[in-house]
Amino acid sequence: MAETMIKAVKGKTIMEFEAYLSEKQRLIESALERYLPGEGEYPPLIHEAMRYSVLGGGKRLRAILVLAAAEAVGGESKMVLPAACAIELIHAYSLIHDDLPALDNDAYRRGKPSSHKKFGEAIAILAGDALLTMAFRLVAKNANQPGIRPESVLQVIKEIGAAAGTFGMIGGQVVDLECAGRDIDPPTLQYIHTHKTGRLICASLRSGAILSGSSKEELITLTKYGEHVGLAFQIVDDILNLDGNEEKMGKTKGSDLAAKKLTYPAVYGLSESRERAGELIEEAVSFLKGFDARAEPLREIAWFIGKRDY
Amino acid sequence: MAETMIKAVKGKTIMEFEAYLSEKQRLIESALERYLPGEGEYPPLIHEAMRYSVLGGGKRLRAILVLAAAEAVGGESKMVLPAACAIELIHAYSLIHDDLPALDNDAYRRGKPSSHKKFGEAIAILAGDALLTMAFRLVAKNANQPGIRPESVLQVIKEIGAAAGTFGMIGGQVVDLECAGRDIDPPTLQYIHTHKTGRLICASLRSGAILSGSSKEELITLTKYGEHVGLAFQIVDDILNLDGNEEKMGKTKGSDLAAKKLTYPAVYGLSESRERAGELIEEAVSFLKGFDARAEPLREIAWFIGKRDY
Repeated sequence: MAETMIKAVKGKTIMEFEAYLSEKQRLIESALERYLPGEGEYPPLIHEAMRYSVLGGGKRLRAILVLAAAEAVGGESKMVLPAACAIELIHAYSLIHDDLPALDNDAYRRGKPSSHKKFGEAIAILAGDALLTMAFRLVAKNANQPGIRPESVLQVIKEIGAAAGTFGMIGGQVVDLECAGRDIDPPTLQYIHTHKTGRLICASLRSGAILSGSSKEELITLTKYGEHVGLAFQIVDDILNLDGNEEKMGKTKGSDLAAKKLTYPAVYGLSESRERAGELIEEAVSFLKGFDARAEPLREIAWFIGKRDY
Repeated sequence: MAETMIKAVKGKTIMEFEAYLSEKQRLIESALERYLPGEGEYPPLIHEAMRYSVLGGGKRLRAILVLAAAEAVGGESKMVLPAACAIELIHAYSLIHDDLPALDNDAYRRGKPSSHKKFGEAIAILAGDALLTMAFRLVAKNANQPGIRPESVLQVIKEIGAAAGTFGMIGGQVVDLECAGRDIDPPTLQYIHTHKTGRLICASLRSGAILSGSSKEELITLTKYGEHVGLAFQIVDDILNLDGNEEKMGKTKGSDLAAKKLTYPAVYGLSESRERAGELIEEAVSFLKGFDARAEPLREIAWFIGKRDY
């Protein structure tokens, strides 16, 4: 059933959606390029390291969710670009620190040497710190956009702070670390998945909506949508780590298995995991039924998450 | 001359000032205790690590500067407590990350094992990240205090972000790392000192003043005061590392020398460094001549920085 819905997105629709993604990615890339300090700015090494990790590609899923949520509630994507880019900075910082020898010890990220392999551990730690610091400053600057209320910006800072902190992303990372190599326990797996990735995905949607003056009901609905696509995203990630295209992923297949990491397929098997991801995406899309055509990109993003192969 | 002024603070004045410091320290400790997640909150290990580093003592100089600056411009210290505590969280995060093996590799901090020695490197890195994340959320929450304008809170987030980032504290740390073991160059030493410590000290003063609705002139004056006490503070730190009381400092005397770190006494000698610190403090106090009795604690803090022996 989920497979049928996913396959239904084809022909013209896929082309339109791909054009939408490309346009938003371009918008985000050029904004990130503009916001980040130049490589020549003193001290140059730290700025080079920040740019290396942020501008080194990536789908920009979180930033696109900020823009798409803003549009879904009647806002304009350009008005929420600083917050969208700030969330990408937070995502980039989390990857740099996750890759460190003391954490996941990953030598590669998106097919390139990870930050600590390229710049050394000290600069990698500080580059992560710098991106996290810059992120909050960038959200605060979103108040300079016309029509954005300072109260909404403060609310978004609190949302992002909560989602990135110990009751969100960092909490997920801590439990993930504690569980590596141990016996698998489904509630713990659920905690890791919803916290390590899910909370920041929800915060992306909520930030775009809050800055665009969404209603309370819209916010609740977008949060449910976010919880579902967030979990689906993580399950698909686990599946790809086990069974994906190494070249497209830019990392070694089976590395989670080798690290004895708790993953969805490890607990539920590959087939049930695929089915669960499909169901979550269907449910996510169904939450959006009260939204008009402006929420179309959010529907397509959900399907896109289900069918991505890298 | 500087010595004379420093010695002039005695008897009743010293007692009153010590009572002021103790009162503010108690206020800050109890607020930090309240704001930080409890040790039992899930996942417990990260919260234990956060509390270990934040509640483990310290002079609370930065937080006290936030409160004292608020009072100096006619505000109330209780109204700026969240921002004051947020700056303490940023200070604590920077110490945890500075102590890491990849950076300064310090096994002790304030006489106790440093975070990575106590909790392991992974948790130390994440505890630093978590404190930095929580800090910005806490500043945003300062808008809940009555009479605090949301625009001022956003301004403070930008100020603190700039002071803690690559054009502030992190920049100073990067250059410090790059210079360890190299030949000493006075402009670089000046850069490290003003950035590694000075910028966050200035941001503390500015944050307290901005939240309390200070005038532009007051803000300029407090910034100059902050630049002077900030540099004096760092010079005194360098002197104490070379010549201080190990027990009070909680770390090994001469560790900067052993690490071939660029310090003020290494460039200018001990006697000239002491003189320079004294001059800076006198100048700092002289900037406050336009302020009334409510700026008295700021004057005393300057003298206190000059005469501290730990």
